[in-house]
Amino acid sequence: MFHLEKKDGETGARAGILKTGHGNVETPVFMPVGTQASVKTVSPRDLTEAGVRMILANTYHLYLRPGDVLIREAGGLHRFMSWERPILTDSGGFQIYSLSGLRRITDEGVTFQSHIDGSRHVFTPAGVVRIQRNLGSDIAMPLDECAPYPCTHEEARAAAVRSVKWEKACLEEFRAGSKAGAGGQALFGIVQGSVYEDLRRECLEALLGLNFDGYAIGGLAVGEPKSRMLEMTAFCCDLLPEDRPRYLMGVGKPEDIVASIALGVDLFDCVIPTRNGRNATLFTRSGRLVIKGKAFERDFGPVDPECTCYTCTRFTRAYLRHLFKSGEILGLQLATLHNLHFYMELIREARKAILENRFAQWQSLFYSRYHLEDKTLIEQGG
Amino acid sequence: MFHLEKKDGETGARAGILKTGHGNVETPVFMPVGTQASVKTVSPRDLTEAGVRMILANTYHLYLRPGDVLIREAGGLHRFMSWERPILTDSGGFQIYSLSGLRRITDEGVTFQSHIDGSRHVFTPAGVVRIQRNLGSDIAMPLDECAPYPCTHEEARAAAVRSVKWEKACLEEFRAGSKAGAGGQALFGIVQGSVYEDLRRECLEALLGLNFDGYAIGGLAVGEPKSRMLEMTAFCCDLLPEDRPRYLMGVGKPEDIVASIALGVDLFDCVIPTRNGRNATLFTRSGRLVIKGKAFERDFGPVDPECTCYTCTRFTRAYLRHLFKSGEILGLQLATLHNLHFYMELIREARKAILENRFAQWQSLFYSRYHLEDKTLIEQGG
Repeated sequence: MFHLEKKDGETGARAGILKTGHGNVETPVFMPVGTQASVKTVSPRDLTEAGVRMILANTYHLYLRPGDVLIREAGGLHRFMSWERPILTDSGGFQIYSLSGLRRITDEGVTFQSHIDGSRHVFTPAGVVRIQRNLGSDIAMPLDECAPYPCTHEEARAAAVRSVKWEKACLEEFRAGSKAGAGGQALFGIVQGSVYEDLRRECLEALLGLNFDGYAIGGLAVGEPKSRMLEMTAFCCDLLPEDRPRYLMGVGKPEDIVASIALGVDLFDCVIPTRNGRNATLFTRSGRLVIKGKAFERDFGPVDPECTCYTCTRFTRAYLRHLFKSGEILGLQLATLHNLHFYMELIREARKAILENRFAQWQSLFYSRYHLEDKTLIEQGG
Repeated sequence: MFHLEKKDGETGARAGILKTGHGNVETPVFMPVGTQASVKTVSPRDLTEAGVRMILANTYHLYLRPGDVLIREAGGLHRFMSWERPILTDSGGFQIYSLSGLRRITDEGVTFQSHIDGSRHVFTPAGVVRIQRNLGSDIAMPLDECAPYPCTHEEARAAAVRSVKWEKACLEEFRAGSKAGAGGQALFGIVQGSVYEDLRRECLEALLGLNFDGYAIGGLAVGEPKSRMLEMTAFCCDLLPEDRPRYLMGVGKPEDIVASIALGVDLFDCVIPTRNGRNATLFTRSGRLVIKGKAFERDFGPVDPECTCYTCTRFTRAYLRHLFKSGEILGLQLATLHNLHFYMELIREARKAILENRFAQWQSLFYSRYHLEDKTLIEQGG
C-alpha cells in the first residue's frame, strides 16, 4: 500500500504515495482530526479546498455516539460524513486513558466508563477491529496501552508487552474478517516503549515479526521533553522497514512536524491546527499569532500576507479579531480554515523539497523564519 | 431607487427592482441578519451561494463593537466583512429597547447602557445617521420609538409623534451630509402607531410629506396577535405610494412572509432562519422539522428531498442529528445554510409567481403543503 518515491540525500526525509481504497495520498501527509465525524467547524468541501487529503476520526467517540453500527447502516463513515478521501481511525485506547472515568485494564481488554453518560463498556482487541470495520476506515489501528510520562522501565515494559499481545490479537481478527483484494482496510502496528530504547526496540521487532501494513510510533507527545520525543522518533525510524509507511501519532506543532519529517516520518495527525484556530491562535510563516490581541484592533492587513487561503485573501486581522471578541462562530471557522491551509502548504512544500533533494535547506529556511516557542528543535534538527 | 416591475392581478403582491450602489436587488427580498458584521455561522461566499442578495446589520451592535469609526477606517462595512452586495442597517433604536439596561428617552434622543460593559451612550437622530454613514450601508434607517405591545392609544400616539419628529431630524442630517449622485446611501422612513389605524395613518402621512426613499412598517411582530399584524400591514400598504419600496421590519416566519408579500410588502428581515437553524429547527416544504428528534436517528434521507442546497445534497437527517447531539459546530452551519437556502427559494418562487400573474394560486399551494403553527394565515390570506 506504500510506494517510496524519493529519499532525501542529507536527512531521513521521505516522499511517498500511500494507496487506499479512497484514492492515493502523497506523503508526508498531515491528517486533521475529525473526532466525532466532523473536523470541527469545517465542511468537507472546505476541507478539500484547503488541500486536506486524509483525516483521522476517533473510534472511542464514534463507538459511543452515534455508534459504529449506525454508521455501518449509513454506508460507512465516509458516506455518513460525506468525506470521499481516506480516513484513518484510531483504536480508541488513547481516549479511554485520557477522557474516560473509571477504567480497568486486564490482558483481555479495557473496561471503561463513557465520558458522555457514565455507562460501562469494554474494548477488546478483536472488538476494536470489528468496530473499525463497521466504520469502514481506510486504515485501522490496533488496541494498545499508552504508558504515561514519566513511568518506570518496569511500567513501560508491562505496557509494551501488553500492547504487542493485543496487537497480535487485533491482527488475527483483522485477517479473519478482512475482504481480499484492493480497496480494503489496512491495519498498522503501534510501537510503544515510552522513552526507553531497549523497550522500543523489543516492541518494534515483535511487531515487525507480525508484518503490519504500516507502523505507528505511539506513546510520544504525552509530556516528555521534546528532545526525548525526537530521539525516540529517530530511534524507531532507523529500525522501521523502508517499504512501510510510518505514522507519528498526535504530533503536532509545525516545527515538530518539520523535524519529524527529517527523521523519516510519513504520517501525522494532531488537533493543533483546529483547536488552536478555535482559540484564536493562527499560524504564519513567522510563527503563531494570537488574533485577539489589542495590536490587531486596527490592523487591516491579512493574517498572513503570503497565504492564499480564503481567510487571508478576503478578511483582515482587524475583522478576525472583531469576530473573536464578539463571540462570532465565523471567527472559529475562518481561523480553522487558515490553519489547515497553513499545515497543508507546509507539508506540500516539505514534500517538494524532498523530491528536489533540498529538504535540509528548506528546513533551515523554515526555522530561520518561524518564531519557535522552544529552541530544542533548532539544536536538534535545524 | 425602486422600479415596480409587476403587480399581481388578484393580490397586492409586487415584483420590483431595488437599485443600490452595490447592485440591483430583485424584490420581494428577504435579508438575513448579520448583527455583528457576520450572518452567524455563514461565510460571505456561502451566503452568496445560498442566493442571499442583501443583508441587514445592526447599528447598535456595530457602534458598540468594533465601533463605526473603526469600520469607516476599514473601508466601510462591506469591505470590513467582505460582503459585496447591498446592506441595510437599522437605526439601533429597537436594540436599545430590547437589549440595553437603563435607558431614558427624551425628545433629543435616547440615553442607554451598553449590554456589553454597562457604559453609557446617547443616540440622537443626527447621531444614528452619522454612525450609519460611517458604516456605509446602502439603506439607512432613522431613529424611531417602537411602542411595546400592548400599549394605550395615548402611549402609542406619543411614540409615533416622537418618531416623526426624530425621523425629520434624521432626514435633515442625512440630506446635509449625503453625497450627490448614484451609489450613495438611501434613507427610509418608519411608520409607527402600534395597532391603531388612526395613528398609523397620521404617522404615515406625516412621513410621506417628508419624502423618504422608501418606507418601513415598524412596531409590529412585537407580541400582537398575528391577525392584528396582518391588518396593520395591509392598512399601511394601501396608503403607501406604489413607487417606493416597502419594508416590513422583523418579519418573519415563512408563512408570515408569504402573507405579507400578498399584502404588498417588498423587503423583509428576520433572525428566524439563522437562529432557528442554530436551534436545530429546519424548514421544509411541509413545515418545520426539529432535527434533534429521536425519529431522525436512523433517517438516512436528506432534510428536504426537494431542496438543492449543499446540506440536502450531501448530508442526511441522521448525520445532522448526530452533529447537534454531539455539539458539533458544523451542525449549526449546515442547518443555517439550509434554512437560508429555503428562504431564498421561497422568495424566488413567490417573485416568479407574481411575474406570471399566479401569486394567489402559488400562495394557496404553499399553505396547503406547509404545516402551520397558527391557522390565522389560512383564514386571512390563503
